[in-house]
Amino acid sequence: MNGSMADVIAELTALLGERGVLDDPQDLERYTTDWGGDRLGTPLAVVRPQSTEEVAAVVRFCHERRIAMAPQGGHTGLVGGALPDADRPELIISLERLRRIRQLDPLGFTMTVDSGCILEEVKRAAEVEDCYFPLALGAQGSCQIGGNIATNAGGVNVLRYGMMRELVLGLEVVLPDGRIWNGLKALRKDNRGYRLQQLFIGSEGTLGIVTGAVLKLLPRPQRSLTALLAVASVDAAVQLYGRARRECSDLLSAFELIPRLGMELAFEAASQLADPLASRYPYYVLLELSASGPVELDELFERFLEQGLHSGLLLDGAMAANVAQAQRFWLIREAMVEGQRLRGEHLRTDVSVPISRIAQFVEQASAAVVAASAHATVLVYGHIGDGNLHFNILPPAGLTAEAASGLLQQLEGIIFAEVDRFDGSISAEHGIGRAKQEAYLARIAETELGLLAGIKHLFDPLALMNAGRIIPAQPQS
Amino acid sequence: MNGSMADVIAELTALLGERGVLDDPQDLERYTTDWGGDRLGTPLAVVRPQSTEEVAAVVRFCHERRIAMAPQGGHTGLVGGALPDADRPELIISLERLRRIRQLDPLGFTMTVDSGCILEEVKRAAEVEDCYFPLALGAQGSCQIGGNIATNAGGVNVLRYGMMRELVLGLEVVLPDGRIWNGLKALRKDNRGYRLQQLFIGSEGTLGIVTGAVLKLLPRPQRSLTALLAVASVDAAVQLYGRARRECSDLLSAFELIPRLGMELAFEAASQLADPLASRYPYYVLLELSASGPVELDELFERFLEQGLHSGLLLDGAMAANVAQAQRFWLIREAMVEGQRLRGEHLRTDVSVPISRIAQFVEQASAAVVAASAHATVLVYGHIGDGNLHFNILPPAGLTAEAASGLLQQLEGIIFAEVDRFDGSISAEHGIGRAKQEAYLARIAETELGLLAGIKHLFDPLALMNAGRIIPAQPQS
Repeated sequence: MNGSMADVIAELTALLGERGVLDDPQDLERYTTDWGGDRLGTPLAVVRPQSTEEVAAVVRFCHERRIAMAPQGGHTGLVGGALPDADRPELIISLERLRRIRQLDPLGFTMTVDSGCILEEVKRAAEVEDCYFPLALGAQGSCQIGGNIATNAGGVNVLRYGMMRELVLGLEVVLPDGRIWNGLKALRKDNRGYRLQQLFIGSEGTLGIVTGAVLKLLPRPQRSLTALLAVASVDAAVQLYGRARRECSDLLSAFELIPRLGMELAFEAASQLADPLASRYPYYVLLELSASGPVELDELFERFLEQGLHSGLLLDGAMAANVAQAQRFWLIREAMVEGQRLRGEHLRTDVSVPISRIAQFVEQASAAVVAASAHATVLVYGHIGDGNLHFNILPPAGLTAEAASGLLQQLEGIIFAEVDRFDGSISAEHGIGRAKQEAYLARIAETELGLLAGIKHLFDPLALMNAGRIIPAQPQS
Repeated sequence: MNGSMADVIAELTALLGERGVLDDPQDLERYTTDWGGDRLGTPLAVVRPQSTEEVAAVVRFCHERRIAMAPQGGHTGLVGGALPDADRPELIISLERLRRIRQLDPLGFTMTVDSGCILEEVKRAAEVEDCYFPLALGAQGSCQIGGNIATNAGGVNVLRYGMMRELVLGLEVVLPDGRIWNGLKALRKDNRGYRLQQLFIGSEGTLGIVTGAVLKLLPRPQRSLTALLAVASVDAAVQLYGRARRECSDLLSAFELIPRLGMELAFEAASQLADPLASRYPYYVLLELSASGPVELDELFERFLEQGLHSGLLLDGAMAANVAQAQRFWLIREAMVEGQRLRGEHLRTDVSVPISRIAQFVEQASAAVVAASAHATVLVYGHIGDGNLHFNILPPAGLTAEAASGLLQQLEGIIFAEVDRFDGSISAEHGIGRAKQEAYLARIAETELGLLAGIKHLFDPLALMNAGRIIPAQPQS
């Protein structure tokens, strides 16, 4: 960085106005911690541009002065990608003031938004026009569209609608040197040249800052059906998924696995919850069907239910009688995560394997964990239709914090080794950031790393933009 | 190129065997013409490797000897991307002998195939396991999966299932220096690092040669419904699409616009066809619904039909009573293209605009064409649900070939200018190749071109791999 800090702040303030620059340590706090409570380095300052042009002006300024930048959305990521670097000072560029919904086209089923729009607000704006933006995440009340794009966010409806990658039609990006790349077309089909848009999606802010996006909308579901089903095993859940996928004709929008322990954790976290079923079962599936037009979902589901019971795959089930009950079923899913947190330090993973190998993976990975630590508790839940499991571990009781932490790290290595044996991924939806970098780098070929580094260098030769996330920072020139 | 041609052939033959190398001019013919009958340069020779390893060996050899390469699938593309260069000799690398279906996983809904597999064969193999690979194209009997990936193929079911980009889970690619990039994972979700796979898809063979792919499968539709509907205008067709999209709950798999002239061209080309409707109408929509499970499509469609008639959007319609009749409806769509060809030289385009602006675009672009050439005939058909129109022109009768050709070129410029005014794309699904390069380059920003050239250089610094397609060839080092 050239020039004194005070000069830099003064110049940034000249660019963005008083409200656009924060450097009081108290004001910064909010931008340097994330959901999990993790905290990294202290930023130079936080800037809050209000428009694409202001973002471009800040980035140009940083590029000229060789100031490292960390773009930031809702900082609800789980891999530390949006937090400032501990080793070198970074300027946090918050997109929180880019909040305009630029256009909504209900006939074309598209919506153009600023990247700082909160996911929940985007979903609500779509609904007003009888449309639907399907991305659904726990953090949707605070995560931003730009962050969803940068991290290629997933969530509970991916099996039907795809990840963020499949929900974006166009992008506007400020490149690391401050030039604006304009790819904001509202087209369903545009087959010209290399699809740079796809490179920006999931690049975790390392190739540029998303400032605007054209999103793909769908018709708003008019009917939906939520059910909690009981099965004997993970294998039964997978088999049942295969049937649901076929029998429910592309109207299946969620198929979540919840183990008995998950149910109990949910009850611990949300005392208002009661078990929807009379008996206890080893595993549950939270299933959702939805349709925008007049399809008889009840009939469809009842046939599926009958066949499931008849085949023995399905042991029991409850269908939500109304919206309130459906919300309670979903609360089980959310409260389970909260209950897990209440139990104290634990290992969270986000792995995927081919759907047909889920059951075998869970069996073998569980055995490997138990062999290494007989009293560790395995907690597996997740998105069966995506092959995406959160294969988590609660450590045995009575360990010191240090011992627990060491054990969990060791168990993560064991789980990841099983993922490798099953041709899986150690990061199905959360990305790499910094938290998973070591495990990621250990698994990719030199060819891949060379190409990634080449791309990073092409877009950001000075290594100023969210450097050190995904792949290690390159030497600054 | 270093070394004599005879040496090169001898060495290639040593690598691939006698059947693996063709250099007799008669044998080459088949590889140097495409569907449209276009013919470009004469290749050095054609090689036909049988495995990924053989492809890698050939590419390594070419890389060492600085021999330019043109990978080739079914050469059914429409923009000249797969044909040999006229200016410098290229070795055609045909993938036609990479024909293995490596694996099919009906529970995981994935299929791993060699890139030389014919699309039709892939679709059939999926059906045997009660699965479905949805890509559907006129050329499906001869186009290859690798070509579909390289060009990001589209077709008639994109509105429901997406383009090829959305149907690929994993790829295996031989890079321009002969290294193998292995991204062959059968995962629905894998969110690690930059998604290179997305860069290869649609890169038209300029970044490497796809040798294998993991495809996303769906449940096989058990029920389908095909109907031919009559509407008064393009605007009515678009409005009707909006209703169908909502009322048919994600079960709409095709929505094709056909003008009256298209219907007549179809009758000219296929004399066995009869008009399914008693009266003549300005425009038709070919609509298809399908479902893998027990959804009452007839009921769903009848309600949609009733509302359409009631609202006045729909003038008339016929529902196919059986599979044979549905096939006849689809034959209208195909025969129309053949009928257009029978009329002699004409202009074909492949443009897209936002769905909600289709009607206005067609009106204004038609007016612009007629203003320039009062007796030119506009023929617009295409995929309403994708905003993708084939806005074609039949020249006035009685022109010399030269005059017709000059006029059509002028009219293309006029149509493309209208596309620009509507924020559209001059290539919605066919790609750039060489045929659209000039129009493409005239429309992209310097920023974009710089990044594309940088990516090309990163993957292929010697500019040996399908150079000159999409962007101009870089100077050879």
